[in-house]
Amino acid sequence: MKKKIVIIGGVAAGMSAAAKARRTDPDADIRVYTDGEHISYAGCGLPYFIGGKIASEEKLFARTVADFAEQDIAVKILSRAEEISPEKGTVRIRDLAGGMTYEDRYDRLILASGARSFAPPMEGADLEGVFSLRTVRDSLRIKTFLQTRRPREIAIIGGGYIALEMAENFVDLGCRVSIVERGSHIIPNMDEDMATVMQRYLESKGIAVHTGRAVRGFFGTQTVGGVHTDKGDIPADFVLLAIGVVPNSELAASAGIDLGVKNAIRVNERAETNLEGVYAAGDCATVTHLLTGKETYIPLGTTSNKQGKAAGENAAGGNAAFHGVIGTGIARAIEMEVSRTGLGEKECQAAGIAYVARRIKADTAAHYCPASREVYLKLIAEASGHRLLGAQIVGYEGAAMRIDMLATAITVGATVEQLLDMDLAYSPPFSPVWDPVLVALNQF
Amino acid sequence: MKKKIVIIGGVAAGMSAAAKARRTDPDADIRVYTDGEHISYAGCGLPYFIGGKIASEEKLFARTVADFAEQDIAVKILSRAEEISPEKGTVRIRDLAGGMTYEDRYDRLILASGARSFAPPMEGADLEGVFSLRTVRDSLRIKTFLQTRRPREIAIIGGGYIALEMAENFVDLGCRVSIVERGSHIIPNMDEDMATVMQRYLESKGIAVHTGRAVRGFFGTQTVGGVHTDKGDIPADFVLLAIGVVPNSELAASAGIDLGVKNAIRVNERAETNLEGVYAAGDCATVTHLLTGKETYIPLGTTSNKQGKAAGENAAGGNAAFHGVIGTGIARAIEMEVSRTGLGEKECQAAGIAYVARRIKADTAAHYCPASREVYLKLIAEASGHRLLGAQIVGYEGAAMRIDMLATAITVGATVEQLLDMDLAYSPPFSPVWDPVLVALNQF
Repeated sequence: MKKKIVIIGGVAAGMSAAAKARRTDPDADIRVYTDGEHISYAGCGLPYFIGGKIASEEKLFARTVADFAEQDIAVKILSRAEEISPEKGTVRIRDLAGGMTYEDRYDRLILASGARSFAPPMEGADLEGVFSLRTVRDSLRIKTFLQTRRPREIAIIGGGYIALEMAENFVDLGCRVSIVERGSHIIPNMDEDMATVMQRYLESKGIAVHTGRAVRGFFGTQTVGGVHTDKGDIPADFVLLAIGVVPNSELAASAGIDLGVKNAIRVNERAETNLEGVYAAGDCATVTHLLTGKETYIPLGTTSNKQGKAAGENAAGGNAAFHGVIGTGIARAIEMEVSRTGLGEKECQAAGIAYVARRIKADTAAHYCPASREVYLKLIAEASGHRLLGAQIVGYEGAAMRIDMLATAITVGATVEQLLDMDLAYSPPFSPVWDPVLVALNQF
Repeated sequence: MKKKIVIIGGVAAGMSAAAKARRTDPDADIRVYTDGEHISYAGCGLPYFIGGKIASEEKLFARTVADFAEQDIAVKILSRAEEISPEKGTVRIRDLAGGMTYEDRYDRLILASGARSFAPPMEGADLEGVFSLRTVRDSLRIKTFLQTRRPREIAIIGGGYIALEMAENFVDLGCRVSIVERGSHIIPNMDEDMATVMQRYLESKGIAVHTGRAVRGFFGTQTVGGVHTDKGDIPADFVLLAIGVVPNSELAASAGIDLGVKNAIRVNERAETNLEGVYAAGDCATVTHLLTGKETYIPLGTTSNKQGKAAGENAAGGNAAFHGVIGTGIARAIEMEVSRTGLGEKECQAAGIAYVARRIKADTAAHYCPASREVYLKLIAEASGHRLLGAQIVGYEGAAMRIDMLATAITVGATVEQLLDMDLAYSPPFSPVWDPVLVALNQF
């Protein structure tokens, strides 16, 4: 008899799982349920869609329901999973269009229910013009609001990657932008000395960056007029909540599935939950941090694809492992780029790791090339033995992607001394004769 | 008594050696002789200087004679070393301005005499309009010729990196460009399947690429009118010889210093020659290929800096090693980039290494981003164990610098399997969710 694999969730992890399950078992009955109307969309592209850099909505969709049907993968949109009954091996689905519910049986279940924007209960959060950005639907609502109401004063609550990307796109649209961050610096997953380079750049572009300010709520009549903070009001006729996401794990929890850090669904490296035959992957699930060995929650599209692929392969009878992440991230705001990988200074301190950090300022290309611009690069290594633990970069075009060199080095456990004389690519338009990475390595 | 360190050569290796010797021994008497009039210049920048992308000659100079004097390093320009007497510990110097010769004593001698353009004796090579490009003086002569004679038909002899860079700059200047390469494909240090991607691109930009054609000489009356090849003539009112360089090692050889592959001065990883107290570094010296373990000759600015630094440190009493290279290279022609590291297929075959190669075509950024363009990436790994041996990239903006990730991996001996699930940076303007490197790794 055919194995029946049911997948809950139709974006990165869910559709990666479905495609890999099909490749692993050509005969399996594979069914995907999603409560959304769009599948397999590029969530990370939404800021650029809002900014008009991606011309049409269609470009955001990697593959359609029809594409998956050709692979004999049945995708049911607008179909919400409401209850899992592990003892019966069934899921209760609500058809959001018709309103009816029905049960479906599974041999293997993959939870890829994603995450939702974190929106703490705050006064005025229901005013018109207060948005979060997670789905294609969110982006369409925002685009409509921007086109019909033409807001000029944008307040972005939260100072992470989404804030940087949306700041760029709002500036492109001719808006004034404020960023309101509760912590002492923007980009919470970077160290303060690096994050402040980006902060100064944003300010030089006319973006108001308010750090150390807690949002109390929003004011306005019907439409938002501004943000109440603990240190005064900030006028705004558009507010974007970008203070992070929380995993959609309630359905799993109520079925007796263990949750882990930050209430994400706890999985092992095979993407298995504590219930046999039930897998989880993507923004709803935990992942192992390869440097600390600890369970963590870092929802990202790349991880969703890899973990979803492992879940799909294993659910279909394969034997795949997704070992974990090292916390690599990258973002751009206008012309300045940031990236990071591994552990930052704060994380080393929290983990009780004795480390050495070195920071340099260098050029992205040969100093005499017009394209050459400044880059700041920080490396963090174990105090004893100098194994690389982390890296952070802030700089102009060409700066940030150098993080992948360091992610590679960290992945294989390289030490500073192994890399000191590395034979890196050199040609004037691409790098100085001593690449910034080599300059930094030579500071240890 | 102060140690006296004499350095012959004032560009990358020589001046790196001088600077490092000074940092290692603050008291040493350090003297640099160079037969040129310019020191510490950016040889790799000359194509862009000719093309006008680097506005002024001054920008090419990293540091001046006065800068070095401030560090108490004496630099004598227009001073040619004519003879080394190891038994006496002296060098005979000719003052090219005054014509006199004199002897100078050394405790430690560093040979950093560089390389010169290879120019086989050919009929018509002395015609006006036939140039090679190695020094600032060459570039000034070429600029003058371009400005006064306004050539329109450029023939570049040789199809390596310099040809690509000069093709870009001549196209920018509005010239028609032909590239004449004796081998079966351009970019001899890449595999044919990758090199032909660049070749098709150049042709799409109106550049004539003639492969498999041997140059017999040049014709013209006083000024060059074209190139004789074994398969017919190619009209040209400007010819650039870019068929490689040969090491300036004759002075060393006549002093009893061993030469190695391609007549480069043989050095060990401490940059020592066979004569005690005599070091060599840069484009005049050999270097170890870290993958084959063999002596090789790959003259490059990055290597000159690193090897020069080691020579300077050791001559001043330190204990430095420069272990070698893996053959990393990068170049751009207009909008297309190429890069390579490690061993290519031909090199594996020549070395008798059983290998597996995988080639993919992918995108440089998320498919829906306007900046996303195509990239071809090839990985080569040992057949048994899958240790990475080499990588080659051809593609549009953002493609080629990914080679540094693979250079890092090869440097530390990583296997394909160690890197399969690497946590690389992802954001739509920078990469697709599966970076091309991960796509290629997943083909093994």
